[in-house]
Amino acid sequence: MNLVKRLKICVFTFALLFIGTAVNAQITNDITHEEAFTALLAAKKNAEDSNVLVNIAVVDAGANLKAFIRMDESYLGSIDVAIKKAKTARYFNMDTGKLGELTQPGGIIYNIELTNNGMVSFPGGLPIKNKDGKIIGAIGVSGGTIEQDRAIATVGAKSILE
Amino acid sequence: MNLVKRLKICVFTFALLFIGTAVNAQITNDITHEEAFTALLAAKKNAEDSNVLVNIAVVDAGANLKAFIRMDESYLGSIDVAIKKAKTARYFNMDTGKLGELTQPGGIIYNIELTNNGMVSFPGGLPIKNKDGKIIGAIGVSGGTIEQDRAIATVGAKSILE
Amino acid sequence: MNLVKRLKICVFTFALLFIGTAVNAQITNDITHEEAFTALLAAKKNAEDSNVLVNIAVVDAGANLKAFIRMDESYLGSIDVAIKKAKTARYFNMDTGKLGELTQPGGIIYNIELTNNGMVSFPGGLPIKNKDGKIIGAIGVSGGTIEQDRAIATVGAKSILE
Amino acid sequence: MNLVKRLKICVFTFALLFIGTAVNAQITNDITHEEAFTALLAAKKNAEDSNVLVNIAVVDAGANLKAFIRMDESYLGSIDVAIKKAKTARYFNMDTGKLGELTQPGGIIYNIELTNNGMVSFPGGLPIKNKDGKIIGAIGVSGGTIEQDRAIATVGAKSILE
Repeated sequence: MNLVKRLKICVFTFALLFIGTAVNAQITNDITHEEAFTALLAAKKNAEDSNVLVNIAVVDAGANLKAFIRMDESYLGSIDVAIKKAKTARYFNMDTGKLGELTQPGGIIYNIELTNNGMVSFPGGLPIKNKDGKIIGAIGVSGGTIEQDRAIATVGAKSILE
Repeated sequence: MNLVKRLKICVFTFALLFIGTAVNAQITNDITHEEAFTALLAAKKNAEDSNVLVNIAVVDAGANLKAFIRMDESYLGSIDVAIKKAKTARYFNMDTGKLGELTQPGGIIYNIELTNNGMVSFPGGLPIKNKDGKIIGAIGVSGGTIEQDRAIATVGAKSILE
Repeated sequence: MNLVKRLKICVFTFALLFIGTAVNAQITNDITHEEAFTALLAAKKNAEDSNVLVNIAVVDAGANLKAFIRMDESYLGSIDVAIKKAKTARYFNMDTGKLGELTQPGGIIYNIELTNNGMVSFPGGLPIKNKDGKIIGAIGVSGGTIEQDRAIATVGAKSILE
Repeated sequence: MNLVKRLKICVFTFALLFIGTAVNAQITNDITHEEAFTALLAAKKNAEDSNVLVNIAVVDAGANLKAFIRMDESYLGSIDVAIKKAKTARYFNMDTGKLGELTQPGGIIYNIELTNNGMVSFPGGLPIKNKDGKIIGAIGVSGGTIEQDRAIATVGAKSILE
């Protein structure tokens, strides 16, 4: 009993020492709704110029939906795909297509798409970075070919830097 | 038996006649993404003028998400509430607040909110009608008081008629 | 056709004007894992001093799980309740017990608990604020009476200011 | 009828005999929250020493969440992956990486990841054993490479024996 008590004290002393290093609150950067709109409209314009019908979703730094639009006649199934692409890109801070290279049969993170309430691992999702290169959100595009989706997402993500 | 046969023939003749007049497939009226954007921006402007931070969602005639925006600093929990308000308004073609009058304990459709993957039965969701009075979609607003949400949704829904 | 085109141009000009007001990126404050740990341990110590067995969850500014502990012999069902209390407190930036005053039968947001994948509207969830009063996360406690849960959560939330 | 009655009596006498030998209820070994914390902190320290940002989850013998921490700047998507790795390791009492060898296309338990509300079948999840070699819980780590995740999880799992 005495030993257990001592152990407990040890664990928590250890824990408290650990906490001792905590000093400054974390300052993060989050996309604004104006930036989200800018990205949405830039992506939409690019889609129209390319004659592609897409759904476009933008999530914030916390992977929560910030802005969305579905172009007329675009796929209904692309609503969820676009949102999940944006979330996935923020969940792992990468191009969703890059993730997909690792999730194939035999890949090192095979079937990771089954986590996080369903993820998308093909192109069309991209992190959005601010001028300092910090990730502040992500964009997801669905409706065209994967190359088209990625190209449109790229235009959207870059638009906030102009 | 003969009677039944005759009856069947009658039914099918009747059905064919019916179909004959339906040669032209059902013509529906669906909100365009331009109209959805118009509603979104009008609602957002009204929210800003009233100093209210809201999430705004627009769904189409099929109750599928068409456009969405979350204003900076508005509630994270309002993302889902705004979308569900818009969907609920289209699911039953009515002001979500009206629905709520019927879903209280003892009400005739008590707890109907549990269906459709979760519905919202307080004000802030409204059908969007075109100039002919046909419902073409719905709008959902969440983040202010229920009176504010309803007022903002009303402005959004009416904006496409102007 | 010409009219539609003009309308489209109008909508987007309007949208772009809107965007014109976007300038500075949003700077947000997010809880650190050291702070989350501090809150967790302070709450746990308070629970032990009060002889209450609880689950304690801390979420970040994006309502994502940051830290969690379940005390031995505490309720299994409280895992999810504690996490949902923390999320709910951040979703609507308020004491979950305050939310509950509005969600009762006849309340203005009756049954809102059905949104956001299930929310909790009784005491035990509280926002966590930094020294400047900005909300940087939330804490949820479940396992004792609602008064005990709220008291323990309060100790946890305040601990990061000491 | 009499025969049936006799048979019933037999069955219950048999059952009672059986229960007689089971007087002592099943004795299980379950991880304590102190041990869970020890594992969490040891894993976290190892991650920091290796400059890896991870999420760490510990589940108990019942595969229920016992402790969790997400290091600052680690992947948001790793919250769920870490928890699912820990659960998977306990669901089948094995290194999640070992499970993955059997779940590939053509494997004997192909796509078993789809069960249990989503499992993870790549390295980073490990059972936690007590000094007698009995499994008392499991640990899941996500955020680094699969080799890093497994190494960190190993340190965490072993820490409770020291």
